[in-house]
Amino acid sequence: MDQGNTAFVLICAALVLLMTPGLAFFYGGLVKAKSVVSMMMMSFGALAIVAVLWVLYGYAIVFGDGGVVGWFGWDPSLFGLDGLLPDSAKPAGTSPAIAFAAFQAMFAIVTVALVSGAIADRARFGAWMIFAGVWATLVYLPVAYWVFNLDDGWLVAGLGVYDFAGGLVVHINAGAAALALAFVFGSRTDRREDVSKPHAVPFVLLGASLLWFGWFGLNAGSETVADGIAALVFINTVAAPAAAVLAWLVVEKINHGGATAVGAASGAVAGLVAITPAGNMLTPFWAIVLGFVAGAACAIVVTVTSGHRAGGAREVVGIHLVGGLVGTLFIGLLGTDVGGLITGDWTQLGKQALGAAIVLVYSFTVTLLIGFTIEKTMGFRGRGDGDVFD
Amino acid sequence: MDQGNTAFVLICAALVLLMTPGLAFFYGGLVKAKSVVSMMMMSFGALAIVAVLWVLYGYAIVFGDGGVVGWFGWDPSLFGLDGLLPDSAKPAGTSPAIAFAAFQAMFAIVTVALVSGAIADRARFGAWMIFAGVWATLVYLPVAYWVFNLDDGWLVAGLGVYDFAGGLVVHINAGAAALALAFVFGSRTDRREDVSKPHAVPFVLLGASLLWFGWFGLNAGSETVADGIAALVFINTVAAPAAAVLAWLVVEKINHGGATAVGAASGAVAGLVAITPAGNMLTPFWAIVLGFVAGAACAIVVTVTSGHRAGGAREVVGIHLVGGLVGTLFIGLLGTDVGGLITGDWTQLGKQALGAAIVLVYSFTVTLLIGFTIEKTMGFRGRGDGDVFD
Amino acid sequence: MDQGNTAFVLICAALVLLMTPGLAFFYGGLVKAKSVVSMMMMSFGALAIVAVLWVLYGYAIVFGDGGVVGWFGWDPSLFGLDGLLPDSAKPAGTSPAIAFAAFQAMFAIVTVALVSGAIADRARFGAWMIFAGVWATLVYLPVAYWVFNLDDGWLVAGLGVYDFAGGLVVHINAGAAALALAFVFGSRTDRREDVSKPHAVPFVLLGASLLWFGWFGLNAGSETVADGIAALVFINTVAAPAAAVLAWLVVEKINHGGATAVGAASGAVAGLVAITPAGNMLTPFWAIVLGFVAGAACAIVVTVTSGHRAGGAREVVGIHLVGGLVGTLFIGLLGTDVGGLITGDWTQLGKQALGAAIVLVYSFTVTLLIGFTIEKTMGFRGRGDGDVFD
Repeated sequence: MDQGNTAFVLICAALVLLMTPGLAFFYGGLVKAKSVVSMMMMSFGALAIVAVLWVLYGYAIVFGDGGVVGWFGWDPSLFGLDGLLPDSAKPAGTSPAIAFAAFQAMFAIVTVALVSGAIADRARFGAWMIFAGVWATLVYLPVAYWVFNLDDGWLVAGLGVYDFAGGLVVHINAGAAALALAFVFGSRTDRREDVSKPHAVPFVLLGASLLWFGWFGLNAGSETVADGIAALVFINTVAAPAAAVLAWLVVEKINHGGATAVGAASGAVAGLVAITPAGNMLTPFWAIVLGFVAGAACAIVVTVTSGHRAGGAREVVGIHLVGGLVGTLFIGLLGTDVGGLITGDWTQLGKQALGAAIVLVYSFTVTLLIGFTIEKTMGFRGRGDGDVFD
Repeated sequence: MDQGNTAFVLICAALVLLMTPGLAFFYGGLVKAKSVVSMMMMSFGALAIVAVLWVLYGYAIVFGDGGVVGWFGWDPSLFGLDGLLPDSAKPAGTSPAIAFAAFQAMFAIVTVALVSGAIADRARFGAWMIFAGVWATLVYLPVAYWVFNLDDGWLVAGLGVYDFAGGLVVHINAGAAALALAFVFGSRTDRREDVSKPHAVPFVLLGASLLWFGWFGLNAGSETVADGIAALVFINTVAAPAAAVLAWLVVEKINHGGATAVGAASGAVAGLVAITPAGNMLTPFWAIVLGFVAGAACAIVVTVTSGHRAGGAREVVGIHLVGGLVGTLFIGLLGTDVGGLITGDWTQLGKQALGAAIVLVYSFTVTLLIGFTIEKTMGFRGRGDGDVFD
Repeated sequence: MDQGNTAFVLICAALVLLMTPGLAFFYGGLVKAKSVVSMMMMSFGALAIVAVLWVLYGYAIVFGDGGVVGWFGWDPSLFGLDGLLPDSAKPAGTSPAIAFAAFQAMFAIVTVALVSGAIADRARFGAWMIFAGVWATLVYLPVAYWVFNLDDGWLVAGLGVYDFAGGLVVHINAGAAALALAFVFGSRTDRREDVSKPHAVPFVLLGASLLWFGWFGLNAGSETVADGIAALVFINTVAAPAAAVLAWLVVEKINHGGATAVGAASGAVAGLVAITPAGNMLTPFWAIVLGFVAGAACAIVVTVTSGHRAGGAREVVGIHLVGGLVGTLFIGLLGTDVGGLITGDWTQLGKQALGAAIVLVYSFTVTLLIGFTIEKTMGFRGRGDGDVFD
């Protein structure tokens, strides 16, 4: 085992953990003043419940080599991570398996927290906690198995889809779930103005900054080895979001006559989302192009839908689903060695589109079922200002 | 020397530095609006004075192999760290001694900053700075020598107490000092309502987030080698605080009918405190159990004492002293190879209890002496809103 | 290639990225309420534009071995970093060249963001973005080539100036540019009181904290190898700013009768600036002395000039230009092996002074030209409260 790689994976895991508070501030700054704390608590609550579930059985489902091979894994010796002795190595013998388990825990956490943006200040906290645990189990863990279990997952090992750091598993997954929850919660009944004016823009910028910082861990850390590929992914995690900020500001300038800070923050996140699946398969130049395309596409979607009373779902769908799709498909267009525009062979583009569609449909459908079940039984919707005390 | 381990120790040291600003925001968000900046300044002031003292003579006292062996160390060649050439190695030849000195500096800083929570907005800034320097010298440095100097410290090398990352040195120590200062400062005379309502909950959540992030450095970095043990400690630093958040929210739900964000943040810190001494001696499953126990215990203590007008001391004692005790004793119950419930041998539990009692009594007594001396001479108590200008 | 070093450089690059949001909060907290977001956006805008330019042609100019050797580099194969295959190594074969390119990108970004403090809330956002791109190209890239291109830069390879992590390239450069922009923008016409009262001191402290945290990456990472020198630089990055905080607070106490939180934050930054060029050439004891001298010098300059209506330029010049000069010259006085007070040979002091003067004059002159050109053509000055929408 290599201690440099172990240090790299552990520090990257710490960076990814910081993304969840980053998300809490990004989302928290966007809602009205009396909802800020409630909004933030959805991220922190997700962190608590998903971390515990991951240690208990999440890792065993995603990386266990038993189960129903192809659909979900299982390994009873991995319950509570008990089977991961400190000296067992994974992947490829470069760092302890338990470091990899910690790194992957953060992916599950942040994906669930991402979904919370869709229902902003409209959900009851207790119901959200139930949802978080059930959604992580029935949606996140299977999808993560399909894509991140390189040996057995049917999307990666079977179909051959590329998703370096979670374009499918994290972003399309969370974006599709957000879309489903928008249907569960229905249109906002309060006046649009009350919710569309961000309350605390500095919090939005703080959140975007922590997200960007933590995203280096998510993206570069996914290489699990501190090598040249990790470095390429790292510079692409600078280049793409920077270009996406510029694109979003240009779209705003054209549409509204001026740039906004929320636009800059949203652009950064859009670029980060788009580069997530593709960071290892693009030169920095094409990463800039991807960032510009993703920033513009997301900005246009968010702008065009601004009349819809979908609450935060508009942002989650417009940035994470759209950005995730752009990045996932871009691999099929311009990815090194596989992009159709480079090789003339469009096979990979088809695989990318099929993989994205499968995750989108699965996540949307199952989330709809979970969401309506909770709404009809214990009740999901709250008073409209969250129900967490200060 | 291994460059992977050196990178690990240095980055972990940077993470631990960030804990002190994290504490400033955690504490700062809990006090009333006009005291926020004063509260924060106590952490920043502690950072400045303790960092300088540590470089000048702190490291020489804790890790010097002369002095009164067993009680405190000294090595004149380490004054100003002059004796630590960039290429001298410590510990065990895996990283430069000067990296270890930097890592340990952060422990001294954050421990002193922790104490400041006890006197919240009630102390004069100048007197606090004097206290910080004197307390670091007379309390922190000896206790750190007893426990962290693995060769000579009488609690670790003599008694055989286990304290992986500072349950005794940081948390029981700071908690006992906070208790002593509560006696020095006496009850609050202002109305309870004014101080019990947190002013800025987002700051509390930001502080807790930075603390958690930095705590990965404190805990995993204490292994000083990026290996499987560091990875085990790391995942336990996710599992325990996550469980503690859930436990605290459950206690609140039962007591008050609803969860609070300050409760979630406090639960996270309680779990982090409890896992600090024990991170390398528990499987992730037992770390979850420890977190749940610590979260519940601290929540109950803080709730039960909510009628007392002890100011911030209630939180520092209720979280750091109680959480530190729970974690320290838990090793004697369920620690791998030594826990009485596993081995049937209760020797280690006795050692843990004795070590905790010694640190508690020493810190409480000497802090009381220092505190009263400052109060009777230059005056310690301020106007009640701090005296730092904006 | 060593994976420990690669991990070190990449994580340090992530830390340095966080300095730019840190700066956004540091500057943002100092301006009046309605300008906070506009102020922050100057940092985020600089991040976006400079990152893209760096990837496209910045690295090729600073580290290309063609061009007009001595004055600026160029290597067409480095356009878009295309020539940096993931397995090419730089420097000295210890980590991938592309990791080094990512690390250096952050220096260009933060230097441009630093300049923004000079014109605070007084510039039009569009004009600032043009300035940022032009200034990075005409001022930052050449100066970085002169000093950071160890093979060809005329100041480092020719004159023999020492600048470990950017005293000349980052701080004197940005400080001189800030001074020039103060002339371009002229005196403030609004009442002094409105701008001198910081709006959000907690943001200033948050910004200073993120800056300090990120600065470990900037300083220690500049060694590019996780060795004993990196560790020495790291501890000096604790010692110097800690001493500078104390010095600034003492100056304030003498001048105003009390410490301020903005003073503590400013002191930390002043100490960090001063240790930047010198971190590898001072023992920790002399780093403390340097920090104390720099903190006092900057505090006095900022205090003495407090009557001037120069807006934020006073702080940028008073901290970055003065602090950068103090650190750069200190090497010539007390630097290991070269300081005149140690060796009796004052040659190096002359080289340091000459290097500083050259960068100062070049940056000031060219910035003046760029600034006036923008002001006379498209207009640089805004309405006084920025023009970024929330």
